[in-house]
Amino acid sequence: MTDAKQVTLKPGDTIGILGGGQLGRMLAMAAARLGLRCQVFSPDPDSPAFDVVLNATCAEYADVEALEMFAGDVDVITYEFENVPAAAAMVLDARRPVLPKRKILETTQDRLAEKDFVTRLGIGTAAYADVTSVASLREAILRIGLPAVLKTRRFGYDGKGQAIIREGDDIAKVWTSLATKSAILEAFIPYEREISVIAARSATGQVECFDVTENEHRDHILKISRAPAPIPDALAEEARSVAGKIADALDYVGVLAVEMFVLANGTGPKVLVNEIAPRVHNSGHWTLDGASVSQFEQHIRAIAGWPLGKPVRHGEIVTMTNLIGDEINDYGKWLSVPGATVHIYGKGAPRPGRKMGHVTEVRRPIEGK
Amino acid sequence: MTDAKQVTLKPGDTIGILGGGQLGRMLAMAAARLGLRCQVFSPDPDSPAFDVVLNATCAEYADVEALEMFAGDVDVITYEFENVPAAAAMVLDARRPVLPKRKILETTQDRLAEKDFVTRLGIGTAAYADVTSVASLREAILRIGLPAVLKTRRFGYDGKGQAIIREGDDIAKVWTSLATKSAILEAFIPYEREISVIAARSATGQVECFDVTENEHRDHILKISRAPAPIPDALAEEARSVAGKIADALDYVGVLAVEMFVLANGTGPKVLVNEIAPRVHNSGHWTLDGASVSQFEQHIRAIAGWPLGKPVRHGEIVTMTNLIGDEINDYGKWLSVPGATVHIYGKGAPRPGRKMGHVTEVRRPIEGK
Repeated sequence: MTDAKQVTLKPGDTIGILGGGQLGRMLAMAAARLGLRCQVFSPDPDSPAFDVVLNATCAEYADVEALEMFAGDVDVITYEFENVPAAAAMVLDARRPVLPKRKILETTQDRLAEKDFVTRLGIGTAAYADVTSVASLREAILRIGLPAVLKTRRFGYDGKGQAIIREGDDIAKVWTSLATKSAILEAFIPYEREISVIAARSATGQVECFDVTENEHRDHILKISRAPAPIPDALAEEARSVAGKIADALDYVGVLAVEMFVLANGTGPKVLVNEIAPRVHNSGHWTLDGASVSQFEQHIRAIAGWPLGKPVRHGEIVTMTNLIGDEINDYGKWLSVPGATVHIYGKGAPRPGRKMGHVTEVRRPIEGK
Repeated sequence: MTDAKQVTLKPGDTIGILGGGQLGRMLAMAAARLGLRCQVFSPDPDSPAFDVVLNATCAEYADVEALEMFAGDVDVITYEFENVPAAAAMVLDARRPVLPKRKILETTQDRLAEKDFVTRLGIGTAAYADVTSVASLREAILRIGLPAVLKTRRFGYDGKGQAIIREGDDIAKVWTSLATKSAILEAFIPYEREISVIAARSATGQVECFDVTENEHRDHILKISRAPAPIPDALAEEARSVAGKIADALDYVGVLAVEMFVLANGTGPKVLVNEIAPRVHNSGHWTLDGASVSQFEQHIRAIAGWPLGKPVRHGEIVTMTNLIGDEINDYGKWLSVPGATVHIYGKGAPRPGRKMGHVTEVRRPIEGK
């Protein structure tokens, strides 16, 4: 296992990226702007990220030989998704620095471990309980109350692997439908808004947070992000400080996203941490066109051992709209919107719920708020 | 030869790019953002553009078989440089649409043909004369006066293939040193400033010009561009209209750059056309970070048969600084400048005069002018 502090790439060096989706693709493009090469590892021959790199490895994450060859081709390794199999990370880590460090995945791959970690830092979350059986689910409901959200501890995303439980629901049926033996029950938070902070941290401990982003979901999938979030400055400062504290505690190198809820309470609004994503994040896509340095570039700089950028936001408000499923077919309409920047991820068929692209709009001050 | 109006790409289609330098690289990256693939053709195995595409063809421009296979792999063909060999363009054009159209190269590859073309449009240029011998050079000097600039008609760039002639110079010696039989003598223009207009034109005749850019050269190489150029609105409008007129007259599809001189004259400043570049241009690099749609994306949209963007500039002033030769070694310093966006082209050794990267700075209104 190599120390992150030992990594300092120079232009022309190669970054290995695990995962070939749109995040890997945008990471590779950010690296290219900095004169760094990327090699993408993905089991999917149709990986969008393959299109933007000269060298790709198409193999399963369990293919140890392929992983070893891949490690031999690159100078540092990173990933676009948090569910990197532990065994793959271990094989790679023995050969090349893997950043963010693989032990971070142990915390963030498990909702319970993550909540425990955040709580130990003195940061607020929804009340939660470990659930391993219908009996422990009933106990948890007694303690936490309803409505509440039951989630699998692992492998959930975009609302998958979770269920809301309301008064009168058939508890046993909900438990069975989740088809897991390790879950977490979380109190349902009557939040005012959802926000996120994209934080970058370098190996030397430099932390740079982007403007706090407000996020709107539709059918459990992010639909619109707006930066900066319309919240009081003090609350935005608190949100950024929470993200920085988490990054420091993880001794994190790279970009992470912290999703939070904003709650109205008696003494003024406060934030609760909902989830940590140890990677670049959809709610940070606005930074590609709305800031002088993007989240993708910050991640690349961090894992390259380069100084982080001091991002400056363009315009008063930056809006990012996801194009989901069939919405991608509207790209022709978006291309003609003045000031809009269109991103198409190069995926194949637009399945329902699939993130196919996004559009950024930077509103200049002259046009008012 | 296919009509440009017949080309309408869809996401996933492939653009062939002739030339593997930084312009081809940035074109490919712009195409990728729009979900389009690129294949790069270049004789140089170390082409920077190879790094950002999955498929590359490394072959000579005279290799007909390679050109034919390349044409077979792509849906439309474009180029990053104006000196595409006519024979190569012809081979490709027989198989796939080549945009901008290859007959445009006949005009823009030849300084004399280009000046004649501009003059026929009623657009001002420096006084010029065809020069084919030392005798005709002497005649031209008598007509145009000194100082004047002698340039080869073909293959000049960054001040190469040209010489300033001043009173008292040895005319025969200057003629011999240029080592050509086809040259052009141009009156030396005592310009106030150099500007350029980057114009995009679609197959349907839509024209979109970026803000006029002011350019500062050092040792005949572009060093700094600033947008918008600090010139009166009416003059900027005239400059954009000149570029649009040229694009229309060429029935151009894609992005072209028109370099101009601003002259102080008795009745107010006016513009003279210096040079047309039938391609994306160094003085348009600021659009990558300083506008909602870049020159590279406009070019891709035009040749894809997509609507052009309506670019909106970010910030009051956008500055682009080229990193030339050893200056690239300062990238670490630039990475830490707040608001700066750093581009490194992924070239090998930083030879003197070689364009290695650039930096964009967007000045927000809040910081004043």
